[in-house]
Order: sequence, then structure tokens, then C-alpha cells
Amino acid sequence: MATITKTSPLAPAGGFPSLPAINGVEFAAVEAGVRYQGRKDVMLARIAAGSSVAGVFTRSSTRAAPVLDCQSKLGRVSDQTKGFAFLVNSGNANAFTGKNGQQAVEATTSSVSRTLGIPSDHVYSASTGVIGEPLPAERIVAVMEALFAELDPENIEGAAHAIMTTDTFPKGSSREIEIDGQPVKISGIAKGSGMIAPDMATMLVYIFTDGQIGTAQLQELVSGLNDRTFNCITVDSDTSTSDTLLVAATGKSGVAVDENEAFSQALHEVMLDLAHQVVRDGEGATKFVEVKVSGASTDKDAHKVALAIANSPLVKTAIAGEDPNWGRIVMAVGKSGAEADRDRLTIRFGDILVAENGWVSPGYKEEDAAAYMKQEELLIGTDLGLGDGAATVWTCDLTHGYIEINADYRS
Amino acid sequence: MATITKTSPLAPAGGFPSLPAINGVEFAAVEAGVRYQGRKDVMLARIAAGSSVAGVFTRSSTRAAPVLDCQSKLGRVSDQTKGFAFLVNSGNANAFTGKNGQQAVEATTSSVSRTLGIPSDHVYSASTGVIGEPLPAERIVAVMEALFAELDPENIEGAAHAIMTTDTFPKGSSREIEIDGQPVKISGIAKGSGMIAPDMATMLVYIFTDGQIGTAQLQELVSGLNDRTFNCITVDSDTSTSDTLLVAATGKSGVAVDENEAFSQALHEVMLDLAHQVVRDGEGATKFVEVKVSGASTDKDAHKVALAIANSPLVKTAIAGEDPNWGRIVMAVGKSGAEADRDRLTIRFGDILVAENGWVSPGYKEEDAAAYMKQEELLIGTDLGLGDGAATVWTCDLTHGYIEINADYRS
Repeated sequence: MATITKTSPLAPAGGFPSLPAINGVEFAAVEAGVRYQGRKDVMLARIAAGSSVAGVFTRSSTRAAPVLDCQSKLGRVSDQTKGFAFLVNSGNANAFTGKNGQQAVEATTSSVSRTLGIPSDHVYSASTGVIGEPLPAERIVAVMEALFAELDPENIEGAAHAIMTTDTFPKGSSREIEIDGQPVKISGIAKGSGMIAPDMATMLVYIFTDGQIGTAQLQELVSGLNDRTFNCITVDSDTSTSDTLLVAATGKSGVAVDENEAFSQALHEVMLDLAHQVVRDGEGATKFVEVKVSGASTDKDAHKVALAIANSPLVKTAIAGEDPNWGRIVMAVGKSGAEADRDRLTIRFGDILVAENGWVSPGYKEEDAAAYMKQEELLIGTDLGLGDGAATVWTCDLTHGYIEINADYRS
Repeated sequence: MATITKTSPLAPAGGFPSLPAINGVEFAAVEAGVRYQGRKDVMLARIAAGSSVAGVFTRSSTRAAPVLDCQSKLGRVSDQTKGFAFLVNSGNANAFTGKNGQQAVEATTSSVSRTLGIPSDHVYSASTGVIGEPLPAERIVAVMEALFAELDPENIEGAAHAIMTTDTFPKGSSREIEIDGQPVKISGIAKGSGMIAPDMATMLVYIFTDGQIGTAQLQELVSGLNDRTFNCITVDSDTSTSDTLLVAATGKSGVAVDENEAFSQALHEVMLDLAHQVVRDGEGATKFVEVKVSGASTDKDAHKVALAIANSPLVKTAIAGEDPNWGRIVMAVGKSGAEADRDRLTIRFGDILVAENGWVSPGYKEEDAAAYMKQEELLIGTDLGLGDGAATVWTCDLTHGYIEINADYRS
């Protein structure tokens, strides 16, 4: 297996951020030796009784056993007096492992259930790593007491490290807001950079808040924000079998955040920040690209066009080559399947007007665009000139680094 | 602009095939200096009066001016006593060129019309090369007399060369069959390897036969076969703004081929052969891959799954790395959007049974699969275990060569 040691050039400056502890949530991370040696590879989060939990999962029809298990449990609260737990291991995805996969999930989640004294349907697990190999559940069960002993409200950074596979940096984000003069906090962690290096997969996101909100309301909020954040990023168009986003609200701040605009905005920012960090850790990425589409007939059409541009290998390689190759943008718009009229199309690189009315703009100078493409952060703007539909998607370039990570090493 | 001089390792052995002349069709190829210097870059085919012409074009909503012009003309025969013509230039795609693009098509096709004495709506043109630059139509008009003088039934190979952009080899295919003891011939040429090197685009295919068949019948046959040939290949999932397939039947054999199984089979073989040659010239390709999907709920679902596998950057890089990474096949099935049940999935590399019933097959040995992946021609078989839906798609691997061609050179 390839070991990626060099941190992405797009990693946020300053390293892992200082995330505020969330009242009602504790973290532990230990080494279980699931696959990796010499690093922590299992994390446990304990969440207080009375919390709400919401989640969004991969839509893959070949999704992994822990995902199916989470989906069957989500929204259920079998005992109001008991808390919840998130258990995650890296190194093995427990995906495409048949009946064995389900048994492994039962073994690890029931071990958490016994150790923490909570119902097993309050335990949400996830696994990330190799597909198709049986998960050595006994190694995770063997460290359960050690995890229990380590639980600490300040240890979210350890958790962020334990869930990494070939990520080149741990990902965290937080916001603190005031509602009616009272503080509410949100802290989240994520891992992933697409379907990562040999056999590695999965984007995992865990977000915690001390805001007070019901389960159904939290789920509605999270699902809506997910469509504007994690569903708007793409590294290589490949969908993991294990993608999981879980949000827990402990309510310990005593502040009701249901339908609160400031809270919803803050949660949006945390989700978007984590989503951007996943793109910034995209395999082989050297450019962070925002693709903004406006003027589409519908928002759905705008999203289609944005994804067609962001997923086009020819657009992504042009960006890698710092080539203002706007003909490839025209091509991607054309193939998207969305309603488009060649002669109403406007294309911009940053503030540079490249093309309008079906042809290159009279004032366009290739050298200006070529200079712009040398930046590390790029904006590709496309207006279809048809209606009010708009969408934004974030992606990275396609480089030799991607081929090296995915083709040059054998699993 | 990058010049690709090395012939694809997947090119057919023996070079350009000897194609039989088709009674009623003549070819000319000359140097017009549209963009390239020192090579023939314009071809003209004259097709006898009484012929039928059928065509299939890109579905891109940003398609090029010549494509729109061909689509408006297809199926029309304004004078039964006059023949037809195909005019193609390489070096400039005349795409995204606004009103100027349309004027350029009018200039070149009316020049053919005057020179050959045929109605201008019997002239089908195509352009392939740079997107967004005005086509210097006057350079093509200037060589019209020279093209006329060169027309020769034996010159199809010259035509195959003239339409190349960054193709690494000219593509041709033919079949000769007998119907009721009488010979019928089919000869075709093609160019393309996806959306080729910097700013280059387009797959173009021209096929000629002396079989006798009506326009409507020919169109129906060609459209149906296109769905099983050119619509089943993918190099990089990017769709050109200029893709064009034209088939002309001169009827000069005097043999009716309408609803003739042998003819339809022979035409299918020529189309498939040319389609495969386009994949074999895929940018940076080192492996030719057949993706066969069976057991889907519908043929449409099978096609979706096959394309999801064939277009997945992770599957394609695994093939480049000769890595039997079947987990990525599972991932691609899962993301395809087709109905699939993880626990009914069967995956094969060639004759090697890799996975069945939702897990790796008990008899599977990784070293067998690793040895298989070293071959230049590969078969990936996937059975969904749900119904009778089936589809086959052909593709190539994703290598450093693709990145070099598309990112390392500036246009």
C-alpha cells in the first residue's frame, strides 16, 4: 500500500484548528492494529443522553455493512435516558464482505453497547479502508476498555487523526455563535479525499453541537445543508461505498437552535469548510477550483452543468496544465444534458470575461487568462443566459499525482 | 500544440488495411494549410446520384456549425439526378464560432456545390480541431479545384489521413459479402481518440457501400447499429462538439440490401471495428478493455453499469497499474444509479471468477488475477443476478500519457 507522506499543497495554513469542546461529547482514540501499525486507528465518541442525532449516507447500491446498519438505526431512540456513540475504524472498509460484514458490525457495536451501558441501536459505526477483506472485529472489541478509559471532551483532534486513511492532513472546523446572549458551539471533523489511494475509500464527517434541537428538525436541517455542501464537491466523480455524515446535538447549551438562522448559517459554514478541506486533500490536487453556474433554467440544470465541468477529465487536466482552455468548458456544458444555448453562453475565469454570445469575447486576451490560471485558487464562472437556476461546485485538478497514487502502486 | 508522433501500442498490426473501392464514390485529399503545415488537411468525397445518405451526430447542446448544417440537410434530396458530397477539414473545429461559423459552412459547402454541380443541401461538411477560432474558409475554397482534379475511387486512404488531428494512426475497415451470389462492399474510415490533445476534438466516421437501400431504411439501420457500436465506446467520458457519422449507399452493386441480415451484420462489423480502433488510439492508452455487463434488470441499466465502470478514473487507473482492484468495480456498480444488489453481484476478470454473492470468491487467487491484468486486452465481466439486461462497452486505461497529452502542453 502506498504511504502518502507529503501534505497537500492546498492544506489550510496553521495545521489542525483548535476546536472548542462540546458539552455532552467525549472522544477517545487508540491503536487497534486493524491494518495500520504504529498509529491510532479506532475512535469512539460518547454523546450524552437527550441528544439528537441526524445523518446522511452514500446512495451507493453496494454500500458497506456499517452504512446499512446506521441507516436502519437512524431516527430511533429506544431509551430516552441513555446516550449515543459513534465508533469508527480506519484500515478496513468492511464493504463487500457479505454476511461476515454484518456480523462484524454487530460484534463491535454490541461491544460499545455493553461497555457504555447504552442500547446497541444507539451505536453508529463506520469503517474506512480496504474493500472486500473481512473486518477483524475482535481487534476492535479488544481495545474497547482502553477506548472507554480514554474518553475525554478535549480529544477531538485525536479522533480526527484516527479516522484518516491516506488523507495528508486531519480535517476540523468549528463555529461559536451567540443566540440571545448565550453561546452555542459547533465542532466537526472529517476525513477523505475522494476514493483515496489503493483500495482506500470513503468520506466520513462527524459534527457535534451543544445546541438544542429535535431529531426530526436536525435531520431536515442537515439533509438540506448537505445538498449545498458535501453533495457539491467532487474529486474524481467516484462515489465511495461508505460515505457517512453524522451530526449530534447534545442540547447542553440550553439554547434552542431550531429554525434559528444564525445556527443554521454556522452549521452551514462548518459543513462547507470541512467539504472544502476534503477537496483540498484531493488525490494529487494542486489547484482548488470553484465552479459557479448561473442563468440555468433550473437549479438542478445548473448543478448538472457544474458537475459536468468539475468532473471533466479534459477540464481538470487543462487546469493542472494552467491552460485557459475555455473550449473544454463549452464541451462540458454541451455534454451535461442540461438545457443550454450555445449562443447565450458566457464564460469567465475569475473576473476575466472569456466568451459571450457563442464566441470568444472581443476584449479577451489569452495572456491575461494564462496569468490567472497560475493561481492556486480558481473560479470558473458560467452563465447559461436562460433563467435563474444557479449552483456552485468545488473540485480540484487532475494531475500526474492522481495517476501515481492510483496506478503506480499495487495494493 | 503537442505533436504526437508515437503510434499507439494498441494500433492494429499491419498498418492501414486495403479497402475495396466502392462503385459510385471517389475521394480527394489536399493540403489547404487550415492550421497544419506540410500535410493534407482537407478531404472531399463525391457520391453518385441515386445514393442514400444516413447520419448520426453528437447530442451536445453546444455542437459545432457544420453539425447543425448537416442535421438540417439530412434526409433531404432536392434533386434526384444529382449526387452528394462529404467535405472535411482538420485543424479547426469551427465550433463555438457564432455567426461566423455558419457563414464559413455556407462558403465551403456552396463552393463544393458549384464545383461539383450539385445542390448545396447535398453537401455535408465537418470540421475538427481547435474550438473557438474562426475557420479560414477561404483557404478551403482556394483548393476546391485541386480537390476536384484529384477525385479518385482508389484514394480512401488519403482521405483517412487528411481527417486526422492528433490520431496516432489512420483508421479504416471493410467487409465484402455476397447476397444471392452478387458481391456487396462496405468501406469506412474514422478519426478520433476522445476529445484529443490540446483543443483538438471530435470523432468523425465515413462509411460507403455499393449496396442498394432507401434513405429512411439506411437511417434506421445506422441509428440502431450506432447504439451498439460508437455509443458503446468511451475514452474519457468527454463528448465532442463535432462527432459525426455518415453512411452513403450508392446502390451501384445493383443488390438490394434492405432488411438483409448479412449486410446488416457486415455493416455492424465495420462500425464496431472502427469504434474499437478509436479506443485503441485513446489518449495515452496501453490497455484495450471490454466491459461486459449481464443479469441487469434492463439493457439500459446494464449500459449504465458498463459506462460507470468504463468511465471510473479509479477503475481506469487500476487497469493502468495492472492492479486487479475489484473493489473499485463494486464501487462503480454502486454509483451507477442502476438497480443492483450487492449480494447477487458476480465479477470476473477474463475467465477468473473474482467475486460472487457479495464477497470475494472462495477459489479466487490474487496472483492469478494479477497475472491476467498484465495482458494488453482485458475483459471485465459483471453479472448483477437480477434479470436479462445486458450491455458491452469498450474503453482504455487512464495513464500518465493522458495527463501528458492534456495537461503538460499548452495550447
